[in-house]
Amino acid sequence: MPPSAALAERHRRLRQALTTQAVDALVITSLPNIRYLTNHNGSAGVLVATTTAMHLIVHGVYTESVRVRQRTAEACPDLTLHDVPASYEAATLDTLAGLGVANVGFEAAHVSVSRHTWWAKTIAAQGLAIDLRPTEGVVESARVVKDANEIDTLRNSAGRLTPVTSAVLKALRVGMTERELAGVIEAEIRAAGYERLAFDPIVASGPNAALPHYRAGDRVIAEGDMVVLDFGGVLDGYCSDLTRTVSVGEPSDELRRVYGAVLDAQQAAIQAIRPGMATAAVDAAARDVLTERGLGEAFGHGTGHGLGLEIHEDPRLTRAASHAPTALEAGMVTTVEPGAYVPGWGGVRIEDDILVTANGYEILTNVPRHLQVVG
Amino acid sequence: MPPSAALAERHRRLRQALTTQAVDALVITSLPNIRYLTNHNGSAGVLVATTTAMHLIVHGVYTESVRVRQRTAEACPDLTLHDVPASYEAATLDTLAGLGVANVGFEAAHVSVSRHTWWAKTIAAQGLAIDLRPTEGVVESARVVKDANEIDTLRNSAGRLTPVTSAVLKALRVGMTERELAGVIEAEIRAAGYERLAFDPIVASGPNAALPHYRAGDRVIAEGDMVVLDFGGVLDGYCSDLTRTVSVGEPSDELRRVYGAVLDAQQAAIQAIRPGMATAAVDAAARDVLTERGLGEAFGHGTGHGLGLEIHEDPRLTRAASHAPTALEAGMVTTVEPGAYVPGWGGVRIEDDILVTANGYEILTNVPRHLQVVG
Repeated sequence: MPPSAALAERHRRLRQALTTQAVDALVITSLPNIRYLTNHNGSAGVLVATTTAMHLIVHGVYTESVRVRQRTAEACPDLTLHDVPASYEAATLDTLAGLGVANVGFEAAHVSVSRHTWWAKTIAAQGLAIDLRPTEGVVESARVVKDANEIDTLRNSAGRLTPVTSAVLKALRVGMTERELAGVIEAEIRAAGYERLAFDPIVASGPNAALPHYRAGDRVIAEGDMVVLDFGGVLDGYCSDLTRTVSVGEPSDELRRVYGAVLDAQQAAIQAIRPGMATAAVDAAARDVLTERGLGEAFGHGTGHGLGLEIHEDPRLTRAASHAPTALEAGMVTTVEPGAYVPGWGGVRIEDDILVTANGYEILTNVPRHLQVVG
Repeated sequence: MPPSAALAERHRRLRQALTTQAVDALVITSLPNIRYLTNHNGSAGVLVATTTAMHLIVHGVYTESVRVRQRTAEACPDLTLHDVPASYEAATLDTLAGLGVANVGFEAAHVSVSRHTWWAKTIAAQGLAIDLRPTEGVVESARVVKDANEIDTLRNSAGRLTPVTSAVLKALRVGMTERELAGVIEAEIRAAGYERLAFDPIVASGPNAALPHYRAGDRVIAEGDMVVLDFGGVLDGYCSDLTRTVSVGEPSDELRRVYGAVLDAQQAAIQAIRPGMATAAVDAAARDVLTERGLGEAFGHGTGHGLGLEIHEDPRLTRAASHAPTALEAGMVTTVEPGAYVPGWGGVRIEDDILVTANGYEILTNVPRHLQVVG
């Protein structure tokens, strides 16, 4: 976990954002955002950040964990703990009322209509002088550019996929089910020292490879199959994400052709990565290669997504720049994962994790990218 | 997955609820609710349910998976697929406008303020005749009482924890780290045929046992430790959840005393379970035993939670009946998991999964509950 000094720097930037937003306090309900600012990694909690302090509201079951951490080098600076006598909703209003803050931002993307309605009704009923204002992406816009501690952790998290992949490809045998191979992936991710899986592994063999979001089923892996393997681990909170498509036995000419197109598309997108580049331009770099090879229609998803405390975060490398940020900056970390999917036949996806550097990019994952023959 | 006939019955009950709520359509954004009604188990989607049809809005990456399932016995009746050309928000409004529905409910607990604001603005800007109305727990109130298909699956999901627990207790050795033992739990859950972990396993040894939401760390398990083990698997979408506290070598008198109190508390709560019983009364049955033994303050969480497609659902067996439902009904499934936690010393929790039957209860988990000595 990041040391207190790293948290203090994050607080400093958050306080600037509070000033920009003209709020006295921000109610933070996104758990990854709370972890980013406090090192609290429980599965519940609300954080009220002011210009001078961090007020963490947690149920009694987490109190002891927080107290233990507060005695270490990973303590959150300026932290005050608040209990939850009734509900998180009520405890949040009690904390705000106790602080006497009037202009209060909340995370509109991380507060449900139910919760907001309850807050609004209770503020009115109790005559509290609290003006709740929606904000969007205040903490996320800080998280999108990783600090030195995060980059080290992400590099380590991506790097540990190298032995995982070697072991998984070595274990892959004709006659195994997809689910058995998913079990091998889980065990190897654990053995590599990750605290948990970043997501349920995908093992999509033969025609199942045409389904980009397939998981792993009872299909038995056969000679001549392609197999899409997509997996990652979480190390000290930070996600890694890798996809390789392999050939069980000699690949068909069609698999060689599609694989070559996807690999060229990935290479084109990776080489486009540098500070200032539009996210849509990186997507276009991959998409143009696939379109030229007649596979434009077969590539039905975006080229990549940011990676950090969450497995999917900003930036998004997609056709339309609907998400901010629309341009890359040094310190962003993103996957690059074009694919081509042909119903009835199968599919290919190749994915690596990339750090945007001052001069271009660094590939954090370190696994051969050519078409590997296994089994 | 449930067959089409089971889904049809769920649709019938939902349509009655739509009539009660006086809405022409319900926009369903909770993924477990969408799965419950359609068998769609992707990680994104929006469902618009009307009194005659199910309109499933999914991104192109899921289309092929849905089409494949629609050709099986697990097809969703009356399903129409809708694409996502731009965003889920926009596709939802397009679908509603195409259907010409005016009075539209949405799930207030599963729609963020951001999404709702975008809908409201766009409806106004486009002059759409759609009146969006918040609803609470419409699908959840159906899900709280399990149907025959769900009960079979939950019984099977809980039952498979028996061999998992035997293997884990056999593998537990002095000198292992908590994390290594968590790896054994994961491997055994996979080997038992579960599709995934219900949650990251808890292995809390020695003083860590005092932290109810601790996960698993680098602590080495030592002679004389107590170890709290809390884990579960997901089978065909349905969760199981078990906790056992074991003694590594001969237990101290204090561990025997606390364990006996928690076991008696659990037994009292289980025996209180029958249709019509207040959820708060089941909680009180456990809490009263612990209070009598001087451990009331050491029991800082609720006695149990419902179990189904989600690891935490209604009913909640807690002190204050803040959550509906406040009384048990036949077909509900809940954990019963009292605990006692003493900072610096450690803790004990014992948890089983219970089905409320017409006459009382059935314990779905089948693992010895006495204090087991391992290592």
